[in-house]
This record gives sequence, structure tokens and C-alpha cells, in this order.
Amino acid sequence: MKTIFSFGLALLTSIVLIEAQSIDTIKYYDGQQFTIIGRFHSEKNYARFPANYKDKLREPVWNLGQHSAGISIRFRTNSPFIAVRWAVKNDAVMDHMPFTGIKGVDLYSYVDGSWKYINTGRVQGKRNEFMMVGGAGNNYREYLLNLPLYDGADTVSIGISNPASITMPQENYLIAKKPVVYYGSSIAQGGCASRPGLLFTNILARKLDRPFINMGFSGSGTFDLSVGEALCETDAVLYVIDCNPNTTRDLIYERAVALVKYLKEKRPDVPVLLVEAFPYVNGFTKPLESENHKKNLELKRAYDTLKKSGIKQLYYRKGEGLIGDDYEGTVDGVHPNDIGMLRIAEELEPTIRKLIK
Amino acid sequence: MKTIFSFGLALLTSIVLIEAQSIDTIKYYDGQQFTIIGRFHSEKNYARFPANYKDKLREPVWNLGQHSAGISIRFRTNSPFIAVRWAVKNDAVMDHMPFTGIKGVDLYSYVDGSWKYINTGRVQGKRNEFMMVGGAGNNYREYLLNLPLYDGADTVSIGISNPASITMPQENYLIAKKPVVYYGSSIAQGGCASRPGLLFTNILARKLDRPFINMGFSGSGTFDLSVGEALCETDAVLYVIDCNPNTTRDLIYERAVALVKYLKEKRPDVPVLLVEAFPYVNGFTKPLESENHKKNLELKRAYDTLKKSGIKQLYYRKGEGLIGDDYEGTVDGVHPNDIGMLRIAEELEPTIRKLIK
Repeated sequence: MKTIFSFGLALLTSIVLIEAQSIDTIKYYDGQQFTIIGRFHSEKNYARFPANYKDKLREPVWNLGQHSAGISIRFRTNSPFIAVRWAVKNDAVMDHMPFTGIKGVDLYSYVDGSWKYINTGRVQGKRNEFMMVGGAGNNYREYLLNLPLYDGADTVSIGISNPASITMPQENYLIAKKPVVYYGSSIAQGGCASRPGLLFTNILARKLDRPFINMGFSGSGTFDLSVGEALCETDAVLYVIDCNPNTTRDLIYERAVALVKYLKEKRPDVPVLLVEAFPYVNGFTKPLESENHKKNLELKRAYDTLKKSGIKQLYYRKGEGLIGDDYEGTVDGVHPNDIGMLRIAEELEPTIRKLIK
Repeated sequence: MKTIFSFGLALLTSIVLIEAQSIDTIKYYDGQQFTIIGRFHSEKNYARFPANYKDKLREPVWNLGQHSAGISIRFRTNSPFIAVRWAVKNDAVMDHMPFTGIKGVDLYSYVDGSWKYINTGRVQGKRNEFMMVGGAGNNYREYLLNLPLYDGADTVSIGISNPASITMPQENYLIAKKPVVYYGSSIAQGGCASRPGLLFTNILARKLDRPFINMGFSGSGTFDLSVGEALCETDAVLYVIDCNPNTTRDLIYERAVALVKYLKEKRPDVPVLLVEAFPYVNGFTKPLESENHKKNLELKRAYDTLKKSGIKQLYYRKGEGLIGDDYEGTVDGVHPNDIGMLRIAEELEPTIRKLIK
């Protein structure tokens, strides 16, 4: 028998709902009407690749590309409350990441000069509805709704007070600048953030006021040239390549060299940052003897070869320090928990900030 | 249809298993044979109250007391690998906390002067088995296995290499000193840490080298005198009372005064620390206008009354700052994620360290 604990939140939600409903009725608007960030196409969905990539990509990459990791809806409203309805494709379950991260949504608003967390859309199943906030007043505010990390969003709609108004954003926060494109593994896709806003590329987007296109593909971030083709379609300010966690040691050198050469041929002016895997450490592991370390040496060898061959604007970030050194930054020894996600964002921020100047 | 993503971890686990099995067969030992910390009775279970409390407590408190939050098994072994089998009572599910935190286990070892995270026992369902570590060598090491936070552990057994040895701890880490007893809400029970070791009382135990008896009861931490009776049965070095999140404003003053008076009558020499709720903040909330703040004022009023009445060794910690001020420390606006859990531990550490000197 499964036991569901409510934590007494049912009560809180009811209060918000009562408050909301006593003000007005809720009117829902399709999320596709607003500004969608974190993807490089304009098809009417929340997928990371446009349809014409289905035959170009390996099947798992295409399938994972249906997950809405890093995709967000930007809008503006003066509604005193905001509800969200969303339906996910798979109702996916994993044991080391909460449903709120896998298939939930979370909402930020731009308040007093920065993006601030407002609330999380709690998950009931494949179809979900949640009152995100009440008591927001009647001022216009800019919002950011982050979509599920490990499931696909089939539909998303935003509910506001009937006489209130909801529009495209009027402020350019997160929209004005060219995106950073981040290609990586399950870690880059957001495993295992507790809610979408804590995926490190989403944290970095808010910190740097810059959209990120998340190309993290769980288990399948393997320096694919077919993904490289998609990267070249983006109007990127920077490519970050963080594929070591998913690539076997014998393939890293060859594939990293090939992918960077391909990117530099098609997009010579876009800088490329290669990122090592952080050490998968525990109290026993000797990082310098680990397979992880040996894989990182292969990435470094690829970097050295590329630099010697005359490739310009190629940069390198070592894995050490990315999730701290207290061993507490993962949920399972491999995937960052929220502590690790925040640390990765804080560690990468100065490097990326310098490269996108 | 539910989709399970493996993250390629099946492969990693297989490698460890093969390594283990190629060394020797696994022999399992009942966890009750070793040292169990985080409870104040010696019955053969992982419950937080002894059986005679069933009729003393309110029913939800008794039921939540069956959850093994804060209970850990301390042992010593020279086995090169460690497996764990555990069965949980409810196979509980919540949407904002991963199964690894709700009903998983995690393992720490004392290495180079401190407790270091080794691995997490991943959750399959009600009955679970996981190879926690391979390649630990043949040296004797001290271990700490933290049990599920939001489910009860019916049975726990530890599997080691057949010719290796497993014993009670020989080092006194986490055992030698009197416990801190922490009475609180869902937050204190561990909602929503990603794994048991990241519950803030478990973090504090490791930092302070001191067992904590966790009396967090989700939704039911309401300054109960019946829980106070249990607190007085412990040989505590400090009582921490953090019940505001679950108690309505009108009850806080009366109940906090009554509970502290009761504790001081029965255990006059044990200091008591009252802890306010941290602000449940989002980008819109004005903390000083929140219900939370008003509740905290009631706790402060109780503290002032108690101090005026001559109660000695009574201390107070404000809620501000407990989970930081960037709004990122919760999964849902209320319950700390791992970021919040770590911050609470770091914030409370100096205060508690001073009081237990």
C-alpha cells in the first residue's frame, strides 16, 4: 500500500484557491502564446529539437529531446493569482529525483532587480493543475515558468484572473541576448534537481541574464555530430561541451576533436568551452586513480591537439571543484543534488561570464 | 504508462556487483546486532518511541514515530564491499521528495578525520537491496548507515564478504556523547532532503560528533506534553523545540510555555533552545507581514514570559537567515531542499555547539 503524506499543504493550497476564486474566475491561456526560451525552433511544442531532426539523431537523443529540460515560458501579467495546468508525456518516475524536478514546473518573478523563486507546481500525475501564487497584487510583473526536466510537456497553460491581462514580456530580461548552448549528459539535463529552476543551466541563465539552450541528454550526451549540427543552427554566444560523463574513455579524444572541428568550421566565431566531468567522489575514492580522471585526461589531450592545430577561442574547465569537496553535493555519488547544482552554477559563472563578454 | 530512466546506473551497479561476487559470497547480518543511534529505547526495531508510548501519544505522532528519521546504524567492518537489504513499512510516495530521501538509506564512513558520504541505497519498492560500495579494501573502517526519513524500516541487514568481519563500532565517533534531542515538524523530520544523510539533524550530528534524537513529526509537531514526556526520558545534553511550523498562532504561547515548564521541572539542568520557523519566503512575500512572522512573535512572547518567571538555561534562535536569503533553499516555498538543509545545519551549528559545551 502506498501512503501519501500531504504535509498539510492541501490546507495551504485551499486557502490560496479560495482567495483566488473569491476574487474572480480563472481564465487559462495556452503557453505557446507567450515567449518560449531555451530552444532554437518555433514549432508549437516544448521539444528541444524541431521535427526535421527526428531522422538525423540517434533515437535516444531524439526521445530525450522531447523532454522540456531548460525550456521556459516568459510572460507578463497583472493578475493577483497565477495557476498552471500542464500535461506531461510519460509520467516518468525515478527513485533519486522528486516528481517536482522530473515533471513539475516552477515559477520565478523579476522582483527588485533579480529573478526570485515564487512557487513550485506540485505533481498529481500526467495531468496537473496547481495554484502557483495568490496575493500578487495588481501590478504588472514579469514571470518565468520553468518546464519539466525529465519528461516532456505536452501542453502548458497559464491561468489568471478573468479581468486581468496576460501578455508577452515587456522587459527583455532573459530574452535580449544570444543564448549559451550547453551540450552534456544526465547531469546537464538536470538530474537530480528538486525543481526545474535549480537545474544549473537555469540558475546560470538567471544569474547571467542570458537564455541557455539545454542540450543535456541523459546517458546519451556523447559528442554526437548530429547534435553538433543542431548546435550550429543556434545563434549561440558560446558552446559548452560537457559530454565526458556519457562517453567511454576510448571515444572521447576522437569525438571531442571531431565535434569541435565541426563546430569551428561551421561557426568559427563562436567560442567553445570544454568542461571535464567533476570527480565522482566518495570517502574512499582516490580521484586521480578514477576512470573519471582518466577520461578527463583524454578530453585534455583533445583540447591540446585542437589548440596545436590552430583552433581559436577554445577554452577548458577542469572538473575539480565543480561540486565542492565535502562529498555532499550528489544524491547518489554521481548526480548533483540541489547543493551540487548550485555549486556547479557558481563555479561556472565567472568562466562563462568572461567568455560571453 | 510510467517510464523509468536508468541513467546508465544499472551498468555501474553491475560492475560493483561483479567485483563483489568475484571476491566472495555475501553474508548478511541483522542491523539490530550493531549500535543504533537516534532513539532512546532498546527495543528490536527502528521506531522512535518504545511500545509503551502508543497509548500516551496522539495517533499521528505515534504513527510518524514509526518512521526511522534520524535513526542510524553504526558498525565496523573490514569487508571490501558492503551491501544493504532493507524493507520499509509503507512504500510511501510524496511528489516533492525523492524515494531515496523518503525510504532510501545512505552510508558514511569515517575517513581522514571526518564522516564522508560513500553511497546511497537506491529504492526499488517495499523490499530493497543495493550494493553500496566495492573496492573499500581490507582495512577496518567505521560506518554509519542512515535510515529512511519518511517511512519506517521494518528490517535492515548489512551484507559483507563472507570471510570478512563485522562488529560493533570500536571508535566512539557519534556514540560517546549525550544526544541533542530535536522536537519539530516535517522540516525537522527531513522533508525534503534527497537522502537521509542530508536531514539537517543528521548533518549536525556528524559536524558535532554527537547523536541527535530526531523528534520531527510531519504536520504534528505541536508542543505536545506527551512528546515532552519522551524527551524527559532521554539523557539529553540539549532540547531543541522547533514546533512553530505545525502549531496555529493561537496555541503557540500557551503550549510553548507549558512544554518548557514541564521540561524544566523534570530535567532542570538540560538547556532548552527555542527555534523560530524560518520565513516562508518568495519574491512577493513580505516576511514581516506573514503569518509565519506573527507566529514567531508568539514564540518570542512565550520565551519572554518564561525568562521573566526565572527559567534558567533557556535560549532563543530567530528564524531569519536559517535557510539563506536567495529564495532557493526550498523545494516548495516551505520545505528545505538539500541547499536549505545544509544551510540550516550551518546556521544552527555554532549556537548548538555553544550550548552543549
